[in-house]
Formats: sequence, structure tokens, C-alpha cells
Amino acid sequence: MPDQSLPRDSAPRTRRGAQTRSRLLRAAEEAFGSRGYHRAGISDITLAAGVAQGTFYSYFRNKEEVLRELVRNMGRDLRAHLAAEISDARDRLDAEARGLRAFLAYVAGHPWMYRVLQEAQFVDESIYREYYEAFGESYLRLLDVAEADGEVRPGDNRIRVWALMGMAHFLGLRYGLWERDVPLDRVVDTVRDLLRSGLMTGEHNNE
Amino acid sequence: MPDQSLPRDSAPRTRRGAQTRSRLLRAAEEAFGSRGYHRAGISDITLAAGVAQGTFYSYFRNKEEVLRELVRNMGRDLRAHLAAEISDARDRLDAEARGLRAFLAYVAGHPWMYRVLQEAQFVDESIYREYYEAFGESYLRLLDVAEADGEVRPGDNRIRVWALMGMAHFLGLRYGLWERDVPLDRVVDTVRDLLRSGLMTGEHNNE
Repeated sequence: MPDQSLPRDSAPRTRRGAQTRSRLLRAAEEAFGSRGYHRAGISDITLAAGVAQGTFYSYFRNKEEVLRELVRNMGRDLRAHLAAEISDARDRLDAEARGLRAFLAYVAGHPWMYRVLQEAQFVDESIYREYYEAFGESYLRLLDVAEADGEVRPGDNRIRVWALMGMAHFLGLRYGLWERDVPLDRVVDTVRDLLRSGLMTGEHNNE
Repeated sequence: MPDQSLPRDSAPRTRRGAQTRSRLLRAAEEAFGSRGYHRAGISDITLAAGVAQGTFYSYFRNKEEVLRELVRNMGRDLRAHLAAEISDARDRLDAEARGLRAFLAYVAGHPWMYRVLQEAQFVDESIYREYYEAFGESYLRLLDVAEADGEVRPGDNRIRVWALMGMAHFLGLRYGLWERDVPLDRVVDTVRDLLRSGLMTGEHNNE
């Protein structure tokens, strides 16, 4: 589902180059996540990646470019992870529940993801928008297919996608990142119920 | 609904003091919103508020304190606005629709709100958490009442509140702030439909 290709001008030509690039991105995630983008220096990244400082510039023009690539990479990684987790879902509702479950667990296991992503909007808003727009496009295709298959009620799936991403984002923030005081299954069951039947009782849902 | 009281130690004792404090907060919103928190100086705030720089310190200890008070203030203002907008709603579904409509319009009319709030999490995460926790508590009471009245289906309203706030946040970001390419009524109708009947067709909503 996600586009795995790298932008042509920064794609390393060798396997070793790809490994170094990937080490630099992981080190950047740790540095930006733990120190914050503005305080983290390129030397923090190269030190953690175990490469000479000059090596950084064979892969990225500057700190902003590594942030942009890191956010793209985080998005691809998350989308690939979710796609694998929902691959054997029996219908769209099951896919939504499994996808949310996997997302919440992923957030809990990737404590820097939110910080890096949220901070990116103050470095260059387009990094942040691109992340959600790419996510939204993948999600939209899934909802459109489910609607064509008669699983999802007819409606504006583009708007729904933003609503669903927002739900996942806030639930991840509250229950995956801030506090683990509620079992994730309970969070998922609540959303599953909402997507299956809405929020209102029958009495109030026919107006 | 929202708590209108100021923290005791910074509450001005005179009407004129309250006006100056309020001018400083408005000026801070503009300064933090347009320049960003880190680049905005206290002198930008006092200049825009038309007061001497020393006056700032009669009201706030430092830049972080004015940010914290500003975010509290923004939250109170938004909650009071939404409470007024939904006061004559005929049921919870109508209140949700009216509240979302008012929120989206509010976002479009307060272009700095998101930036100030989002950036606050990197100054002190507790400012950001407090904002959403206060919002969530007000929202929770409304859902609990609606559930007791038989309008909302039984469920975990605390989790639902985070899901609903997330929806509103992302829809506000995409359709209120980034692009005004979709009529707000269409966004509201899509969410109203989701809250009334869920996302799934009857065939798939009985498992």
C-alpha cells in the first residue's frame, strides 16, 4: 500500500549506503525525540549512528532534510506495519479494530514518534501535512473499497478519513503515550462499537 | 460549564487590572501565533498591548507563565463559546453537530489557536495536557448526562470523549485551518451521520 520508493536524489546506490542512511535516520529519531529538534545537533546524530560527521552530508543536505526524510520514513513504516496487521481482517470493521489496536501498541513502542511528528510542524508545516495527507490517501482507498463492497455506508470518505485519523491520534496520545491506565482492548472495543452502531440510542438516531 | 476563576496569585484586584491582563494575553496570542513562542519576546507582547515592559511582570512571572495562562484562557473561551452555541440543542446528536459546527468556525476565526496550543506541548507538556483534560472533563459530563437520559448508548464515555476531541481536532486542522475547500456543513453532516448510525452497513454491524 505505501510508496516504498525513496526520492531519487537521496537514494543510496549500495546496500551499505542504505544501511548507513537508515542508521542515521534512527539516530535522528532518537536525537530529535529525546532532545527536541532545535537542541539536537547533527553531531548528536552522527555520534549515535557511529559515523563521521562528514558522512551525514553524503545523505542529507541539512538537519531539516533529515527531519523531512525521517517523518516520511516513520509514515511508511507505520503504514506498512498497519497494512500487515489488518491483512487477514474479515471485514472493514474488523480491519478498523485491528488497525487501531496495532496503532496504539505501535505508539506505546515508539515513544518519540509523536514528538518528532508534532515538532515537525514548527520546522516546516508541509512535513506534517504531507505525513497526514499520505496517510489519508491510503486510508481513503481502503474506505472506498469497503464502500464499493457494501460494507461501509455511503458517505464522504475523505472527511471520514480525517475524523478517523483524529480519533486514532488522540487515543494514541492519551492511552498509548501519556498513561497506560486503560487496557488497549477496552479502547478498541469502544471505537469498534462507535463505528458499528454510532453513539446514539435507536430512539435518537432516526431523525 | 467552564471554571471561570483565575489562579488566586495572578488575579488582578481591579477592573482596570483585569483589562490590562486581558490585553497582555491577547497580545501574547498574536505574538506566539505569528512569530512562534521561542522567537516572540516579552517586549513584542508589551509593545502590542501598549504597556510598559515592567508592567508585564505585575501580571506574569515570565513568558512560560503567560503561555500557560493564555492556553487556559483560550480553553475557557472556547468552552464558553461552545456551551452557548449548543444551549438550545434539542438532543445530544444535535448538540454534537452544533458544537462541531461552532468549533470549525471558531478555528477558522482564530488562526493562532492551534499553533499556540500545539507549540505549548514543547514548552511544557502539562500545559497541553491540562487543556485537553479540562476540555475532556466538561465533555464527559455532557455525555454522561445524555447517557443517563437514554440518548447515548451505554459505553465508556471517557474513551469516547478522547475519540470525539480527536475527530474535532483533525477536522478543524484540515477543514478549518489548512483549506476551506469543503463547506463546513458537509463536514458536520458527515460526523452527524457517523455518530447517529456508525460507519458500517446493517449487514456488517451485527457481529
